[in-house]
Amino acid sequence: MSTYSYSFAGTDTGNRHFFYRVIGYLLLSLSGAQLLTTIVSFSLADKAFWSFLLSACITAVAGSMLVMRSGGVVQLKKRYLFLLTTLCWLTICVFSALPLYLSIPGLSITDAWFETVSAITTTGSTVLSGLDIMPKGVLFWRALLQWIGGIGIIVMAIAILPALKIGGMKLFKTESSDISEKILPRSSSLSAYILLVYLSISVAAALSYAIGGMSWFDAITHAMTSAATGGFANYDASFGNFNDKPWLLWLASLWMTMAALPFVLFVGMAKGDKWALLRDPQVKAFLTVVLAVTLMLTLYQIQHHDRPWQDALTHTLFNVVSVITTCGYASEDYSAWGSMAIVLFFYLTFSGGCSGSTSGGLKIFRTQLAGYLLLKQLNLLIHPNAIWTQKYGSKKVDDALLGAVLAFAFVYFATIAILALVLSMFNLDFVTALTGAATAVSNVGPGLGDIIGPAGNFASLPDGAKWSLTLGMLLGRLEILTMLLLFTPMYWRY
Amino acid sequence: MSTYSYSFAGTDTGNRHFFYRVIGYLLLSLSGAQLLTTIVSFSLADKAFWSFLLSACITAVAGSMLVMRSGGVVQLKKRYLFLLTTLCWLTICVFSALPLYLSIPGLSITDAWFETVSAITTTGSTVLSGLDIMPKGVLFWRALLQWIGGIGIIVMAIAILPALKIGGMKLFKTESSDISEKILPRSSSLSAYILLVYLSISVAAALSYAIGGMSWFDAITHAMTSAATGGFANYDASFGNFNDKPWLLWLASLWMTMAALPFVLFVGMAKGDKWALLRDPQVKAFLTVVLAVTLMLTLYQIQHHDRPWQDALTHTLFNVVSVITTCGYASEDYSAWGSMAIVLFFYLTFSGGCSGSTSGGLKIFRTQLAGYLLLKQLNLLIHPNAIWTQKYGSKKVDDALLGAVLAFAFVYFATIAILALVLSMFNLDFVTALTGAATAVSNVGPGLGDIIGPAGNFASLPDGAKWSLTLGMLLGRLEILTMLLLFTPMYWRY
Ligand SMILES: [K+]
Ligand SMILES: [K+]
Repeated sequence: MSTYSYSFAGTDTGNRHFFYRVIGYLLLSLSGAQLLTTIVSFSLADKAFWSFLLSACITAVAGSMLVMRSGGVVQLKKRYLFLLTTLCWLTICVFSALPLYLSIPGLSITDAWFETVSAITTTGSTVLSGLDIMPKGVLFWRALLQWIGGIGIIVMAIAILPALKIGGMKLFKTESSDISEKILPRSSSLSAYILLVYLSISVAAALSYAIGGMSWFDAITHAMTSAATGGFANYDASFGNFNDKPWLLWLASLWMTMAALPFVLFVGMAKGDKWALLRDPQVKAFLTVVLAVTLMLTLYQIQHHDRPWQDALTHTLFNVVSVITTCGYASEDYSAWGSMAIVLFFYLTFSGGCSGSTSGGLKIFRTQLAGYLLLKQLNLLIHPNAIWTQKYGSKKVDDALLGAVLAFAFVYFATIAILALVLSMFNLDFVTALTGAATAVSNVGPGLGDIIGPAGNFASLPDGAKWSLTLGMLLGRLEILTMLLLFTPMYWRY
Repeated sequence: MSTYSYSFAGTDTGNRHFFYRVIGYLLLSLSGAQLLTTIVSFSLADKAFWSFLLSACITAVAGSMLVMRSGGVVQLKKRYLFLLTTLCWLTICVFSALPLYLSIPGLSITDAWFETVSAITTTGSTVLSGLDIMPKGVLFWRALLQWIGGIGIIVMAIAILPALKIGGMKLFKTESSDISEKILPRSSSLSAYILLVYLSISVAAALSYAIGGMSWFDAITHAMTSAATGGFANYDASFGNFNDKPWLLWLASLWMTMAALPFVLFVGMAKGDKWALLRDPQVKAFLTVVLAVTLMLTLYQIQHHDRPWQDALTHTLFNVVSVITTCGYASEDYSAWGSMAIVLFFYLTFSGGCSGSTSGGLKIFRTQLAGYLLLKQLNLLIHPNAIWTQKYGSKKVDDALLGAVLAFAFVYFATIAILALVLSMFNLDFVTALTGAATAVSNVGPGLGDIIGPAGNFASLPDGAKWSLTLGMLLGRLEILTMLLLFTPMYWRY
């Protein structure tokens, strides 16, 4: 049984009606989110509330028109899922940019688009400054968009990408995984459980932040951007605003880590499989990397910068977790920690967390599988006729899987390389172009260098660079191939 | 029939004797090269000649001792080829560093080692300055080492790596290739023809440089470093010393390009297959990249820097060819051409020329095959059950080949990443660490940034960074896996 309830066949009319219906209902939901923001904005005596109300109306009208045109038949050819997924994200971005454009005086269309795409893809790069005095409604809207983006990622990761077999994601096809077979017979209920995990992390984060000393408004918004590994903060100093309460940094490290682990394993644990997390090869690798890098940089800071070890450990762990989970909060300018830190953070930007979470990037399992391929080849060099068998968790690693993973890794780095070249054409310097491209495609947020580094801001980039970066964010969020396929002639043939 | 005349079986004694014999005769040949340099040095009234004479004696003694101990049996297990290849390169490096250490007053062991490894691996990064007034014998020795390194690369590429099936090199296993089957039945004669190609390029380059206005000494030494895509020049300004004779830059561009094309195709052409070069997929891709990047950067320079087009074209073509062929001459500081140029030169550093030439880097065919894998995956996304067949030239691209190529690409980038991290621990800045690692492993020569850029010098780096870089150069030259395998337990088991 499939996680999506539509059938994979039908006439062109059926396909079109399916598109109208899905996008229509999405817009109606978005309109609901805009209405919620209107209420929050109004109740906080915020002048910007009318722009959310107006946007909610426009979005509702557009959504209703699409739903009304959708007719009764709902059928979709499987191949149109690529187009539908891409169109859903684009439409949501367009209608979500509306309130930002309306509520912030002087904000250009480019900047409204950049901030919105950055929010929904959970990238978290910002062009806004003066966040500390920004209308609360706007801050709530940015956080809510990231949280909604997080839902979109989970739905894609569970329901769509494994079915499309993108980039080795069939490794995580939940229908045939251990947990779903043994404990959760039906995937649709699994999806519900996984969304419940997301909600639980969000609520727990909000409560802990509030208890830890944040205002309720800050607690709720930062909980949303933590759970989504989005990384928007309500302050120009990012999470550094809370440096006087170091326990908040530890709490955030915890929630970001949770949000970057495979959600399905939490469901397994809740159902009684206590060691699901610690048995998982991806989780083991992820936590090992986090601990190793944190240890290296903590020791480096104690030795070279004479920091007290508690202080060094807190900030190192926080920022390492923040970048590897692709959350992108910063507690301070870690690019000032020295050359080794810069190189390590550059690598972490590509890494990403675990598959089946809200984090972006290449994902840990792809690096692991590339390593398996290398081991296989080394073995072949010595034993040319040996049969090499390798398991990843409970699944067999075969050539088809390795091919899918390596092709993804190639297109991932190629996308970053091309985007960096495009950015350099807008006269961005080498480091800004390279790390800007990487941070966009990996949906991390901050880059390196003076301009877009953890202490920087994307506002000063030329418009062309901003549009290019949003394309990179969308490509990264859609696992590149979903979108890339639409630009190939073979997709549109027959 | 195999290209190497030894059998692949034998007792341990046989293996050891084979090692003694090969390395012994290599050292005797090296001693000959040192004697040649002594003569050149002496005839140019150069005080450094005694250091070459002394080195020749030491090397000859060491070589003779090994040959004498080698006994009569010559047998080698195939797996020991990895160890033998690595040991050959290391031994040559040690005995080649001797004359540099003896002849340059005040040169540290580290710097002598760095300069020598950089020479033999045809990397061409230098720690020496004041080249313009350096004893001619030293300059001749540096060039000769690069030329000898070039021979080593060709012998490896033809005789050893395809047999070892490293990194998809079996694609070029000459025994089964079109040309050798049809025209050259025996590979040993093919090897001789290919060395003849190398010699021809060297002689033609020397003649053309001399006719173009270089002194005979400069013509011969630069011909050697062009044919080897080594990149050592006799002047601190590198090839920029000849900027007043722009035709020399065009000639060098020609010879560097020749040296980066698959030599076996020249043999095919000489044997009557006129279109062998232009039919080859690797050559087509290589020339396309060269022309495209040259065009982009020429137009950019005309537009942004107001250069006359002849001047812009000459220097762009020269430097683009120099980096992509991994030769590494510079005619001027191309990192001053703007951000787009820097990003493009960074990419060219990884690219490399064609397989079966003297150039280093990833090699064009590996990028092409990665692209095929991507196409295959995109096709699979639409047609999950389709059979995908792809040819590269006359060979079928199968999963085993793609696996070998992608595993190589992974280990190549991983090696650069680890080396960059190590360099950053010696406090090299981000750009220096990253491009230093890339230029070493790709055997290009210059990096980017103020320190090791085209206008820079490696002398100021800390000793630890220099030793790390030489390891990177050797790894890159030995296609990484040859050397990496020696560090795995499975290589030494049974
Ligand atoms: K983020
Ligand atoms: K070189």
